[in-house]
Amino acid sequence: MKEIFNFQETVKNAAFFYVNSDEVVDHTGPVTSKLIHIGGLGKVQSKPLEKMYQDIFDSSKKGVIYFSFGSVAQSSYMPEPHKKAFLEAFAEFPEINFIWKYEKASDNIAKGLKNVFTFDWLPQNEILEHEKLLTFISHGGMNSVTEAASKGVPMICIPIFADQPHNAKMLEDRGTAVVVDKNDISKKTIVAAIKKIIENPEYKQKVKMISKMIQSKPMTPEERVVKYAEFAAQFGATDVFQSEGRNLNFIQLYSIDVVGFLVFIIIAVIYLFF
Amino acid sequence: MKEIFNFQETVKNAAFFYVNSDEVVDHTGPVTSKLIHIGGLGKVQSKPLEKMYQDIFDSSKKGVIYFSFGSVAQSSYMPEPHKKAFLEAFAEFPEINFIWKYEKASDNIAKGLKNVFTFDWLPQNEILEHEKLLTFISHGGMNSVTEAASKGVPMICIPIFADQPHNAKMLEDRGTAVVVDKNDISKKTIVAAIKKIIENPEYKQKVKMISKMIQSKPMTPEERVVKYAEFAAQFGATDVFQSEGRNLNFIQLYSIDVVGFLVFIIIAVIYLFF
Repeated sequence: MKEIFNFQETVKNAAFFYVNSDEVVDHTGPVTSKLIHIGGLGKVQSKPLEKMYQDIFDSSKKGVIYFSFGSVAQSSYMPEPHKKAFLEAFAEFPEINFIWKYEKASDNIAKGLKNVFTFDWLPQNEILEHEKLLTFISHGGMNSVTEAASKGVPMICIPIFADQPHNAKMLEDRGTAVVVDKNDISKKTIVAAIKKIIENPEYKQKVKMISKMIQSKPMTPEERVVKYAEFAAQFGATDVFQSEGRNLNFIQLYSIDVVGFLVFIIIAVIYLFF
Repeated sequence: MKEIFNFQETVKNAAFFYVNSDEVVDHTGPVTSKLIHIGGLGKVQSKPLEKMYQDIFDSSKKGVIYFSFGSVAQSSYMPEPHKKAFLEAFAEFPEINFIWKYEKASDNIAKGLKNVFTFDWLPQNEILEHEKLLTFISHGGMNSVTEAASKGVPMICIPIFADQPHNAKMLEDRGTAVVVDKNDISKKTIVAAIKKIIENPEYKQKVKMISKMIQSKPMTPEERVVKYAEFAAQFGATDVFQSEGRNLNFIQLYSIDVVGFLVFIIIAVIYLFF
């Protein structure tokens, strides 16, 4: 069968490579001029928060915590002991209201808990902008992470898979999130994470600073997408921003030849000595 | 004595690091978001070329070659055999006029040569923009290199010292310059370099493309200087764009510990075998 699209070759030869991450939030590492950070692209103009959500904010004494695992890792598929752990933890904070994106209304999961409100869909954009929002409990998907950072919301990240552990680690390094191990979910760890976030003002301060930086960047992600695409349209897949590193094969990239030589030497020495 | 200014520490902790090179011209390599290319900064609005220079262009049959070693490596300090080699080479091209930035008028260096014109100062900006200019013979200083690239002029580089060999190599790789070894300057090598440039239209085509790219970049160097300085003024020497690599010491940076271990193993093996 003829190969129609080769991902590796396409990335290798493309004029630019747009990456869904924000350089203010992501780990700093070496990149070439070909890699363009466009995290935060598609920011939507926020509307006024609907009354049913606004009431939850208004009725809370200390503030609101937003809990969503996004649309891929849905909360309703969570193991029962985990659901129970979250609910028991939330019950420990009667002065805080919890908004939980929970997809299966028939579960009636928050029955009997006055401070837990579940919805199968939520206006995340507007909730993240509310000044009474204390933190966002999330799986740490890149879009949630970038949205929360740009709106200045500290996070509690419980990474599940894919890029989520990386995303959680980068926020932890920036000092804007507390990370909970998915294998260590219990009432105790969730209570501890919430307390850490709400009792230490540095989390909020640091993420507010990151948020300001994102707004102050010399180019917005929208400008980057348009201007670099225009450049590529004009000049095609030029060699100008291509590094030789893209032509390294697997053995070269991971220095397997060097490591192999070292291992051989060590084995030879051991053999000779014993 | 108290140290007032520590260059290494200052660069390490600075919010950004402005580099006098253009990423379209320079070699592509890994950099962090802290490094900002501002090569080409301070482009001056060109004026009409003065009559005495314009006459040199008008009277040439095939075009003009501009020869300047800049203001640091002055032509008048060049060894006599080199001066002679250049003049003899220029005499081989009677249909081309040569404009030479030569600082010591009293030397009367071009006496008897109808197609060589010397001046102690030249309007480089305007000369590089003239459509009849064939090539620019230069030492390859970064400012000359960036100016010629942005104006679409192929070069003959004779690098002397400092960053000049690097600059010449990068133009050679881009296909916009011929490089002559400074230890190999003779009538023969200079004639060959000039012939190569004027007989192969690719040099001109490639540098015209580079020039267009420089004009089409999403941000001008002026915008970068202003906007990144504003960002730094607002947020100070933030950690956000700092990589851990800046804290590597000499031994770590050059993997001396790894190399040392390897050398030790090899010596040990040799010792055991023989």
